[in-house]
Amino acid sequence: MAKLTSSSAYLIAPDPNNSGLTRGLQGHDQNGDLQDISVVEERPLTIFLNRQEIVTAMTIGDHPEYLALGFLRNQGMLTDTDEVTAVTFDEELDTVVVRTAVETSHEEKLQKKTRTSGCAVGTVFGDMMDGLEGVTLPSAEVRTSWLYALAHEINRTPSLYLEAGAIHGTVLCQQNRPLVYMEDVGRHNAVDKIAGWMLSQSVSAEDKILYTTGRLTSEMVIKTAMMGIPVLVSRSGFTAWGVEIAREIGLTLIGRMRGQRFMCLSGEERLIRDFDPSAVQSEDKKHRRKSADR
Amino acid sequence: MAKLTSSSAYLIAPDPNNSGLTRGLQGHDQNGDLQDISVVEERPLTIFLNRQEIVTAMTIGDHPEYLALGFLRNQGMLTDTDEVTAVTFDEELDTVVVRTAVETSHEEKLQKKTRTSGCAVGTVFGDMMDGLEGVTLPSAEVRTSWLYALAHEINRTPSLYLEAGAIHGTVLCQQNRPLVYMEDVGRHNAVDKIAGWMLSQSVSAEDKILYTTGRLTSEMVIKTAMMGIPVLVSRSGFTAWGVEIAREIGLTLIGRMRGQRFMCLSGEERLIRDFDPSAVQSEDKKHRRKSADR
Repeated sequence: MAKLTSSSAYLIAPDPNNSGLTRGLQGHDQNGDLQDISVVEERPLTIFLNRQEIVTAMTIGDHPEYLALGFLRNQGMLTDTDEVTAVTFDEELDTVVVRTAVETSHEEKLQKKTRTSGCAVGTVFGDMMDGLEGVTLPSAEVRTSWLYALAHEINRTPSLYLEAGAIHGTVLCQQNRPLVYMEDVGRHNAVDKIAGWMLSQSVSAEDKILYTTGRLTSEMVIKTAMMGIPVLVSRSGFTAWGVEIAREIGLTLIGRMRGQRFMCLSGEERLIRDFDPSAVQSEDKKHRRKSADR
Repeated sequence: MAKLTSSSAYLIAPDPNNSGLTRGLQGHDQNGDLQDISVVEERPLTIFLNRQEIVTAMTIGDHPEYLALGFLRNQGMLTDTDEVTAVTFDEELDTVVVRTAVETSHEEKLQKKTRTSGCAVGTVFGDMMDGLEGVTLPSAEVRTSWLYALAHEINRTPSLYLEAGAIHGTVLCQQNRPLVYMEDVGRHNAVDKIAGWMLSQSVSAEDKILYTTGRLTSEMVIKTAMMGIPVLVSRSGFTAWGVEIAREIGLTLIGRMRGQRFMCLSGEERLIRDFDPSAVQSEDKKHRRKSADR
């Protein structure tokens, strides 16, 4: 039987001690007593593609370049054929400019806006669905021993969540190893930062697993598929459309994963149950990440 | 000492038995056994203002007219002086058209997009901040006995969350009474539905409290203030900018409210602690809504 071990050597891990990401404030508690409280920062970041202003994202501000790259990539405004020549972050102006060798206009895309499940801006939903048409996800295999190891490791990783609350986390994983753990006040930022990292480091997607604390909405499923990742896992719940899309494009979708339990609603064929669920350690309440069924 | 009673006569309450809002699916659990699971629906709704297509929102689909009205109102595209002449939902086309007596163009607003804390589309952040300039919130008072009663009542209200997970809830309250409880896959939809209801029923805001399960981000604070509601409460955490804006506009902001505990980070002057916190009943785990610190 496979062991539940994982390498805890993240390539990028949350940095809860980064004082730039949180702010110490004071407030009054239920007794009227003055208390210190650490809250997460949230600042605007305006993303330009060449000379065109695309969007302003509210972010914790830790990886502006990855956020810009990943956002543009996941919107379909940066494709595999676009050559990125520069990514320039200006801290004073709170802007990032992504430059490509050839400029293309995205006026049309910018006309339409879609609010998906209440999140993400500038997503042209029709375009996103179109963007899925060329997508074929690799067969890959995913072992439950890896998933249990990942969940265990990720849940105990110090993060801004544990420090200051109010934050979403998404982790790019490979087999039983969490690689890149991004957080942000909005889960789509976290996913986009991962996409930006993968793009800038030329990292392949077909052998990866995406683990998120957020709901498995249609947008999360679409982004994962567009990133070329065949497996998406969450502690949280599903939406019907998210499941529908996952089944249509052949993505392996696993949700409500807590302790030994989970539900696989799509892509069952990739799943190898190589570990006895009853042997999975219960979650340590102290480190347990609460579900994002919100 | 005040009693913790509340009237449980919601004007609008969640309807978890509305079969149109959830879908029964099947999947495989950790043991490979086929299981039934109820998941929340998510469908697109395209909102038109007169002849102009504004946005497509992904929503559970229960109150399309309120969502459209509230969204447009909270974006500043519908003002107090606009006379709404019709709100027409077309179920086949998944569209809502809001018509006004006088048509105004929103081309400029539609050019810019802001992703706030990962949520909301079409929010012109600069405009939202400008929109706050005229806002004065009423002095009002808020008693902790009301807040404890509200939390207790709301936590035990049957909702889609308890049925199917993956959902945000926001409740418009008056003193110790929850009035209108809206849910959706995105919390901004829930808030917009409340705004739409208030607009269509001509309901005043100054004596209301907004209770949400979601994070107290800058956008949540801004929307609440633009709706004219002076008190915003959540189980979840804060962001620094959200607190900053709340303090600037004089909104009473209470977060991390669980059981007897809470933190007030802004607008302390409205708060009257009229109930001994130690007398607050612990949360019943069965009904406890998990925090939305995600």
